[in-house]
Amino acid sequence: MMASMQTAAAALRLRDGRSTCVGPVQFSRGWRRSGCVKMKAADMNTRKIHVTPLREKRSGGGEAEANGGYLLGGFVAEDRFVYRQTFVIRSYETGPDKTATMETLMNLLQETALNHVSSAGVAGNGFGATREMSIRKLIWVVTRIQLQVDVYSSWGDVVEVDTWVDAAGKNGMRRDWIIRDYNTNKIISRATSTWVNMNRETRKVSKIPDEVRKEIQPFYLNKVAITPQNFDTHKIEKLTDQTAHRIHNGLAPRWSDMDANQHVNNVKYFGWLLESVPINVLEDYNMTSMTLEYRRECRQSNLLESLTTIKVNGEDTQMLECTHLLRMEEDKADIVRARSVWQLKQPRHNI
Amino acid sequence: MMASMQTAAAALRLRDGRSTCVGPVQFSRGWRRSGCVKMKAADMNTRKIHVTPLREKRSGGGEAEANGGYLLGGFVAEDRFVYRQTFVIRSYETGPDKTATMETLMNLLQETALNHVSSAGVAGNGFGATREMSIRKLIWVVTRIQLQVDVYSSWGDVVEVDTWVDAAGKNGMRRDWIIRDYNTNKIISRATSTWVNMNRETRKVSKIPDEVRKEIQPFYLNKVAITPQNFDTHKIEKLTDQTAHRIHNGLAPRWSDMDANQHVNNVKYFGWLLESVPINVLEDYNMTSMTLEYRRECRQSNLLESLTTIKVNGEDTQMLECTHLLRMEEDKADIVRARSVWQLKQPRHNI
Repeated sequence: MMASMQTAAAALRLRDGRSTCVGPVQFSRGWRRSGCVKMKAADMNTRKIHVTPLREKRSGGGEAEANGGYLLGGFVAEDRFVYRQTFVIRSYETGPDKTATMETLMNLLQETALNHVSSAGVAGNGFGATREMSIRKLIWVVTRIQLQVDVYSSWGDVVEVDTWVDAAGKNGMRRDWIIRDYNTNKIISRATSTWVNMNRETRKVSKIPDEVRKEIQPFYLNKVAITPQNFDTHKIEKLTDQTAHRIHNGLAPRWSDMDANQHVNNVKYFGWLLESVPINVLEDYNMTSMTLEYRRECRQSNLLESLTTIKVNGEDTQMLECTHLLRMEEDKADIVRARSVWQLKQPRHNI
Repeated sequence: MMASMQTAAAALRLRDGRSTCVGPVQFSRGWRRSGCVKMKAADMNTRKIHVTPLREKRSGGGEAEANGGYLLGGFVAEDRFVYRQTFVIRSYETGPDKTATMETLMNLLQETALNHVSSAGVAGNGFGATREMSIRKLIWVVTRIQLQVDVYSSWGDVVEVDTWVDAAGKNGMRRDWIIRDYNTNKIISRATSTWVNMNRETRKVSKIPDEVRKEIQPFYLNKVAITPQNFDTHKIEKLTDQTAHRIHNGLAPRWSDMDANQHVNNVKYFGWLLESVPINVLEDYNMTSMTLEYRRECRQSNLLESLTTIKVNGEDTQMLECTHLLRMEEDKADIVRARSVWQLKQPRHNI
């Protein structure tokens, strides 16, 4: 319920409603028609970027190194196609169980991906878009992302994120990440994702133009964060009212859920998927892996529904497997399908 | 609507409902009975803290300085009671208008406050609690916070946050912050807050015990971030169904909105207050100041309501003043009252 504006209404140019969600993404001829679309990406018009790797000069500060310089990442000396950045987990990035949330990890993946493009010197005027992409009004959209988390970090822990790109078939780009605990140097998380180009005006997905491929190909690295046998290629079942164990409807994107491109940020989708996960699963289990399939983009939507189905993983009651769906409330159109695996936090047999 | 659990229900110990919100805070005898209670604070049981200021040794890494060390703050050499920490604004900390959100600023205030206590060497086992507080099961709760923002930072900008504490009357502690743009060294934001002790079991607010005062008093600094003439001491009007221009109800805290103490994090309250602000105000205006008065604590509540009233600031239609209320939907009990001032982003007369 929204009470109507009263005294101030006349003085303000009120645009009360949320803009409606765009329709299904249209695909260019020849592009695969399933497993579509949209994430963070964007076409920011202006963007101040610190390109200098690792250390930067303080502007107007002579030769003094800025503290801020240390906070940025850079390319790895021994593996020059890998971009690396270190982060301290902040108090507000941890959840009620005192560890970094999966959303925090996804945010760090986004941040390093964007900084990688900037540091590579190919950035155009968009969120991660290259110059040739910007000329063609193209943005990156993610179609699939898979994360594995072995250890969740705590407040004050330092993590080191590596990221690099490679070809994904003929028309896409793969981006991988490895997160290490900075002190132990152990790998605590791995992720892989597939990206395609989309025209920011027509919202059509397109092949990566040759000119764009020429920009990014020099950075391609034939290395995988997640080995082929662990790569989740299984189809994600589409949940329905009948197959979902839980449905949480009435999810309304806030203004602050939009990114610079007035789109819902893909990390926010993840939070909504969790809305239909029972609280005791959130409390008692750690999510150890998740695969998200982005099928349709969404700007400032009206209302969304989150659906989840849970099954115990075979005989091991300490492992759960969930299937999720985020869809439009109005026309039930898919936005994101996902699958997640959860492990009991304190295994009963090991105490 | 939540569909009931089906096949997996038996295998899972489901605790479907959210825990109810605690009732009105009870005050100890002699403590002021208005303008109460609760924020972030907490009583985390364990906490790994990087105490070494500015640079730290890599554990097990010999003498090598950890990159992570650069990411932490420390006391300022020339003003040793001031704790200073530098942050790069990350992509996901900016909003649709490409600048750091007020929530991001509040998060940075929280992070520096907690790190200040850690670095001071007085930390107990709680979120910002001192040793003597932990012994007495006391936590810090904020009663009031006032923020002024002159400039909102962008992605990649480096900000430097200073924080310090002082006495607040006989029974409280004041914590101030100043945020500077690292490159220009200009002050871009100021904040001040008042804190009291609360027993984490009885939830009663108490005076700061002498033993606690002795721990923190050596760090008191007679310096103000916001000058007395700019200090907002006016009573914040309590909005009602009749006086509110907009009411947004049905706000449901998520599991991820809880902090380490299973309480709603005070920064989340701020996000909910904004839910009843019209989207064109969010889009077209910058919030230049805000005062929040925390009146009641809230754990995992059922449902909240956000109320806002807007008035044009005198003759200047480029300035708006809003009054906000966050209250329980069920019993309409106040949680947070707030006042905010907004400035049109591109002044019409100055283009």
